[in-house]
Amino acid sequence: MEKPYVIGIDIGGTNTVFGVVDARGTILYSDSIKTGQYEDINDYVSALATGLEGVIAKAGGKDQIKGIGVGAPNGNYFNGSIEFAPNLPWKGKIPLAQLISDKTGGIPVTLTNDANAAAIGEMTYGAARGLKDFIVITLGTGVGSGIVIGGNLVYGHDGFAGELGHVIMRRENGRICGCGRHGCLEAYASATGVARTARELLINRTEDSLLRALEPEKITSKEVAEAAEKGDALSKEIFEKTGEILGEAFADFIAFSSPEAIILFGGLTKAGNLIMDPIKRSMDKHVLKVFEGKTKLLFSQLKESDAAVLGASALGWEVKE
Amino acid sequence: MEKPYVIGIDIGGTNTVFGVVDARGTILYSDSIKTGQYEDINDYVSALATGLEGVIAKAGGKDQIKGIGVGAPNGNYFNGSIEFAPNLPWKGKIPLAQLISDKTGGIPVTLTNDANAAAIGEMTYGAARGLKDFIVITLGTGVGSGIVIGGNLVYGHDGFAGELGHVIMRRENGRICGCGRHGCLEAYASATGVARTARELLINRTEDSLLRALEPEKITSKEVAEAAEKGDALSKEIFEKTGEILGEAFADFIAFSSPEAIILFGGLTKAGNLIMDPIKRSMDKHVLKVFEGKTKLLFSQLKESDAAVLGASALGWEVKE
Repeated sequence: MEKPYVIGIDIGGTNTVFGVVDARGTILYSDSIKTGQYEDINDYVSALATGLEGVIAKAGGKDQIKGIGVGAPNGNYFNGSIEFAPNLPWKGKIPLAQLISDKTGGIPVTLTNDANAAAIGEMTYGAARGLKDFIVITLGTGVGSGIVIGGNLVYGHDGFAGELGHVIMRRENGRICGCGRHGCLEAYASATGVARTARELLINRTEDSLLRALEPEKITSKEVAEAAEKGDALSKEIFEKTGEILGEAFADFIAFSSPEAIILFGGLTKAGNLIMDPIKRSMDKHVLKVFEGKTKLLFSQLKESDAAVLGASALGWEVKE
Repeated sequence: MEKPYVIGIDIGGTNTVFGVVDARGTILYSDSIKTGQYEDINDYVSALATGLEGVIAKAGGKDQIKGIGVGAPNGNYFNGSIEFAPNLPWKGKIPLAQLISDKTGGIPVTLTNDANAAAIGEMTYGAARGLKDFIVITLGTGVGSGIVIGGNLVYGHDGFAGELGHVIMRRENGRICGCGRHGCLEAYASATGVARTARELLINRTEDSLLRALEPEKITSKEVAEAAEKGDALSKEIFEKTGEILGEAFADFIAFSSPEAIILFGGLTKAGNLIMDPIKRSMDKHVLKVFEGKTKLLFSQLKESDAAVLGASALGWEVKE
């Protein structure tokens, strides 16, 4: 009989959240541990295994679990390792999929990076059900991407494909990016990029704005969205600029893989039409004629609190029995 | 028994060249007709069919032919049509694969654009044998691309993916492109783009150059290459600038699909290391750290005179019997 459940594990710098998921994308049992608390990877895996035993027991034991999927920063699908993840406590290459499988009595474990997990999640349970060619763009602290072509996730020859946060959007006087280069999409369209645009506008412009009541260095994209929703013109302009640059980038992505949809995922999507409308206008303006009006722009359909675990869990179904 | 031959048809604005090809990529019999001579598509297909009958007869009859592959500008793999090709005599959508199949007694016909045909040709007979993730960039009158991911050509949801000549490389004061937009890669890295760079440098600069003996409006990329080979500093600088921009573009392509190789194809590759060296320097300088040193830059291994027919013919092997 087909095993009815999978487990999704979302590894973040602060928390590791995991849950047992059924075929319809419902998280039945979940729990979490603190990632940052375990400096030794073996201690971390032991604590994680203990947590997993708890939810597996509730689900009726490990014979009910088809596979475990892990979404992790810098996760490599090909070898199941986390490689040089700057925001995790463990350095170098960590063969995490193997470590987890060993500690859970041999349940098959598949691992990929968080944006790829989001793309598989959308395809399995979300906005991309039935789509074979689409791109998920994650707009959070950074900008990530999961690219699906012909129904398959694009891993590239080394497992690291889909770094669309690091295409260069401004080749002259581009902002410095966390990657050390200048002008990356991520430097403009991430939550921190939006906050940075806010600070720039507040300095370079003189008009009144609700944002002027805030301490500039601590402004967040959430506060900009709130001000924009209240009608603050400068805040709306910040989203306009962010959407403009995203739309330019999407026009280039479309020239590459001609996706049926681009799906927006992550914290910044809470801004709703404040971010969607300017992206759409910019994309329509910049796209090559042959692609005009063809690529849909969609928001993720995964519930935000569950999305990361669901996305990771979707990998669990890929296991061949 | 497996049929031993395929036919490749390369449709250009001036000539249509076709040939019978064996499994090792040898063109056994070939012929051509003048594309531009036939304003009516039916007359064209009749003339083509007559030409094909000739080479098919030499090959031992149509039972020896597994399939026909066609490379054509604006060719759509999904529906076998040429759609709104600006440099061909026939307007609108032409169901060319069907028309050719009907006129050749039902031999299966597969059609795609010329850059995709080049990519399949490299994979079947050329520099990409054994590779599953690579991009062919065609540097000719325009800049085209054929993208292979996981061993499959990327067609996108509409059959038009792989327009990498039309990613935007210069968003401020970008050159006008044939597509009507500004700053496209093609406006800089095509043969006409190189000639344009030559004219710009000759106007903006004062130093001596072999190119000053030529009529500016008629300078070709071939003449720039010849001057550069003779040691002309300004001409070398033209290739340096062209390579710089191609390397920047390739760094972005690598962030998308992380290919094992990027293969250069077409007229401009005759410049050899004059173009390859600056591309490589620029790509290495601009690529994201995780991809450093991973993607090979190669020249096409298809003989230039045969490449287009070979590329198209490779599609013929895809037919399922």
